[in-house]
Amino acid sequence: MTRGFYIGRFQPFHNGHLSMVEQIAGEVDELVLGIGSAGDSHSTRNPFTAGERIMMITKCLVGYDLVTYAVPIEDLERNSVWVSHVQSMSPDFDIAYSNNPLVIQLFDEAGVEVRQSPMFNREVLEGSEVRERMIDGGDWERLVPAETIEVIEEIGGIERIQMVSESDANGA
Amino acid sequence: MTRGFYIGRFQPFHNGHLSMVEQIAGEVDELVLGIGSAGDSHSTRNPFTAGERIMMITKCLVGYDLVTYAVPIEDLERNSVWVSHVQSMSPDFDIAYSNNPLVIQLFDEAGVEVRQSPMFNREVLEGSEVRERMIDGGDWERLVPAETIEVIEEIGGIERIQMVSESDANGA
Amino acid sequence: MTRGFYIGRFQPFHNGHLSMVEQIAGEVDELVLGIGSAGDSHSTRNPFTAGERIMMITKCLVGYDLVTYAVPIEDLERNSVWVSHVQSMSPDFDIAYSNNPLVIQLFDEAGVEVRQSPMFNREVLEGSEVRERMIDGGDWERLVPAETIEVIEEIGGIERIQMVSESDANGA
Amino acid sequence: MTRGFYIGRFQPFHNGHLSMVEQIAGEVDELVLGIGSAGDSHSTRNPFTAGERIMMITKCLVGYDLVTYAVPIEDLERNSVWVSHVQSMSPDFDIAYSNNPLVIQLFDEAGVEVRQSPMFNREVLEGSEVRERMIDGGDWERLVPAETIEVIEEIGGIERIQMVSESDANGA
Amino acid sequence: MTRGFYIGRFQPFHNGHLSMVEQIAGEVDELVLGIGSAGDSHSTRNPFTAGERIMMITKCLVGYDLVTYAVPIEDLERNSVWVSHVQSMSPDFDIAYSNNPLVIQLFDEAGVEVRQSPMFNREVLEGSEVRERMIDGGDWERLVPAETIEVIEEIGGIERIQMVSESDANGA
Amino acid sequence: MTRGFYIGRFQPFHNGHLSMVEQIAGEVDELVLGIGSAGDSHSTRNPFTAGERIMMITKCLVGYDLVTYAVPIEDLERNSVWVSHVQSMSPDFDIAYSNNPLVIQLFDEAGVEVRQSPMFNREVLEGSEVRERMIDGGDWERLVPAETIEVIEEIGGIERIQMVSESDANGA
Repeated sequence: MTRGFYIGRFQPFHNGHLSMVEQIAGEVDELVLGIGSAGDSHSTRNPFTAGERIMMITKCLVGYDLVTYAVPIEDLERNSVWVSHVQSMSPDFDIAYSNNPLVIQLFDEAGVEVRQSPMFNREVLEGSEVRERMIDGGDWERLVPAETIEVIEEIGGIERIQMVSESDANGA
Repeated sequence: MTRGFYIGRFQPFHNGHLSMVEQIAGEVDELVLGIGSAGDSHSTRNPFTAGERIMMITKCLVGYDLVTYAVPIEDLERNSVWVSHVQSMSPDFDIAYSNNPLVIQLFDEAGVEVRQSPMFNREVLEGSEVRERMIDGGDWERLVPAETIEVIEEIGGIERIQMVSESDANGA
Repeated sequence: MTRGFYIGRFQPFHNGHLSMVEQIAGEVDELVLGIGSAGDSHSTRNPFTAGERIMMITKCLVGYDLVTYAVPIEDLERNSVWVSHVQSMSPDFDIAYSNNPLVIQLFDEAGVEVRQSPMFNREVLEGSEVRERMIDGGDWERLVPAETIEVIEEIGGIERIQMVSESDANGA
Repeated sequence: MTRGFYIGRFQPFHNGHLSMVEQIAGEVDELVLGIGSAGDSHSTRNPFTAGERIMMITKCLVGYDLVTYAVPIEDLERNSVWVSHVQSMSPDFDIAYSNNPLVIQLFDEAGVEVRQSPMFNREVLEGSEVRERMIDGGDWERLVPAETIEVIEEIGGIERIQMVSESDANGA
Repeated sequence: MTRGFYIGRFQPFHNGHLSMVEQIAGEVDELVLGIGSAGDSHSTRNPFTAGERIMMITKCLVGYDLVTYAVPIEDLERNSVWVSHVQSMSPDFDIAYSNNPLVIQLFDEAGVEVRQSPMFNREVLEGSEVRERMIDGGDWERLVPAETIEVIEEIGGIERIQMVSESDANGA
Repeated sequence: MTRGFYIGRFQPFHNGHLSMVEQIAGEVDELVLGIGSAGDSHSTRNPFTAGERIMMITKCLVGYDLVTYAVPIEDLERNSVWVSHVQSMSPDFDIAYSNNPLVIQLFDEAGVEVRQSPMFNREVLEGSEVRERMIDGGDWERLVPAETIEVIEEIGGIERIQMVSESDANGA
């Protein structure tokens, strides 16, 4: 049995994340999705709570033939203990998946195998693209799975991100 | 659809917890198991990490016909914001289950419905009973599901709790 | 103009505290009441929130001819910076009032003048006495000013402390 | 009896704040002034300590026929529990006053009534304008009440903000 | 070149610690003394600041032919990341020395070599013995090196521990 | 006997720092080097851990005829208690050395003597210059002592800062 660990902020869970999971599914039996910056919410960069992100991930992956765990990971603001922190919060895993250079470096120094993929860049780009479209009234729905749309509509997510983005803008 | 929230430390997940889940299963469609004191581990009172407790819960409940979420909840050490903290980390829930008077009081002041059960006392008592038997070499296996035994053996949990209990004893 | 600083947890504000304020009133023009452990609430030792304690203090002292400030002081859990922390949260003061040996020692090492009084012992004793009577259904009302009773009744304070004391007792 | 809650950083308390209080005074019997980012000081954006800001507010409002409370609110760096945190630190309130979109959104999601006013924009703009004039040697005195000037002069506030602004500039 | 790591609270640095260092000196070229609970001070259990403990250690070891480092280690209150935390604060080391079962277990799980010694028990016992004698006016000087006496006298350490022990006693 | 305190982040310890130490050596008998932001590492601005920085400092200064202490100082994120925090972590000192305006202001308000030097500017400039050259493949070796090069090569420091600087750039 092989278990993978895929860390992201999932703000929100979009098509790029879904493609990554589909690709990883071919390499592992089980997958932990670590929800980074779990304590952050209600900001332009992190609009949704950890609980809301668990809902998106769980609903999006329910039809897939892969055992998944969605685990919130709160920030400790200390890179040197980050790998230990992740390992204590997550079921034991064999391979970490990330394209974030800092994450790769930290796992690498700790002796954990990390795999990356060209697809990850798409993932990073789409995150901020989705949030910008939400704020500007653009077509964000095309970039995320239907289940993510459902969760965001239920919680009034668009109104929320539009409100909080104004605070960021005027620096109040 | 009704979703319940059941908070515990699950150190470890034992038969009392399992009975509670079975009882709650008759009242809700989905159940969030909030893993309290998620950042604590390697002590007599909290021997296992959040990740290890996720493993126990997931394996124990895999055969049940109930959608479950195991969500680590780190302590904020501030009772007045505890309900908000829990709500931000968990998928939205309708009913909280607990027999802990503090937890009941906090949910109650926040206007969240709480249900208790006589069975909860069994749950509390068994937690410390299991840990004491682990330390003293007693028959702890009878008090927990087979899957919990499996996880604890895999991680060397008995050796761990016996070691750390010596530190507590000599106050070093 | 002389300003005093009187630190306490005020759980709740009782007759011993009031006597102290009356005595200090003869020595200063203005008095800051620092509400210690401001982040703690809903426990046997610290049942009331900082906001509730501000209400008690303000209502009890409204009739006195003394300018007072009620200032919540959150714990930093670090004795060596405690005096600086207090000084940053409080209007500037000339004399600190306390009978707590640790507080006296900390102010003393920082070069701040501290005054104590035999009356302080009464204050310390009454704090736990009041809370015990609240829990056991005794006559706590005789030990506190009428305004404190009013606040506690309005917030359901007796039910709260009785509930949370059960959690402390069973160690859940 | 109606009590309002008005949150700000009050760095420093200026004429825009004073106008707001005057306007709110027509709508409530008592007003809590929540001093945000209470733990921050000695920076360009937050030059004054919570204690110094309490002094400014108290002196500026002493002549007004309105019961006021100045309550320091330390940052918890977690938007999802911010309302609960504020409610635990403050006397109970009926209406929150703010023009900050994030604050409005957070109170709104928590079911607390929030009122805003066109006057708030003036308040936000004046905050940074005052601090810039202090740093550049401009006429900041015209933008603040006389009592604020008094406090700032007493603590050497202009020298302080000019010094710390140099640190921000060279990124040391 | 071999470097050892020896963790303790050193409250204060006494003859048992010194014997340990002498024994370890035969096994390593350099030794890091990790000063645990570095942020704690002014309590019965942790009377001295990290800086004061650095002074004791440095003065006591100046005559020894061993390269030593005294490094304060603040508590993170999270056993699962403790080893990573220690490793980030300390020069790289090959062997950890401890007789504390928790510390041994944590280093062991992290794959770090730990050595223990019967002499450690003496060390643990002497720590509380020294502090009790300081409080009760007993002959603590016989249990510590001359340089430790010097530091404690210079800072008024006996008066301090006697004062703070009264606070612990009356639970104020 | 006079002891100085020289605070810096030492990311890494370079020739500007060394010149400063040489200059201060003429004014004091002993020197504490406070390693600021000790908990930060693996970022563009703070690439090296506190332990790695202790190694650099110790090796660079071993040949100098000056008693030195390298003491990690973790951030408390609260300027108003910073001086007390530093004083509790460091051996007692008589003079602080810094050219950072914030640090000067904080020591000054606390009544601690601070000395500055034109040489400090070189120090500040060189810090970011060294890190930029490391990232861009420039000649950083000329700006640091040989012992710093040794430590950085041993830990793979160039690869690390180049990796983490990519994370900073794409905002992942």
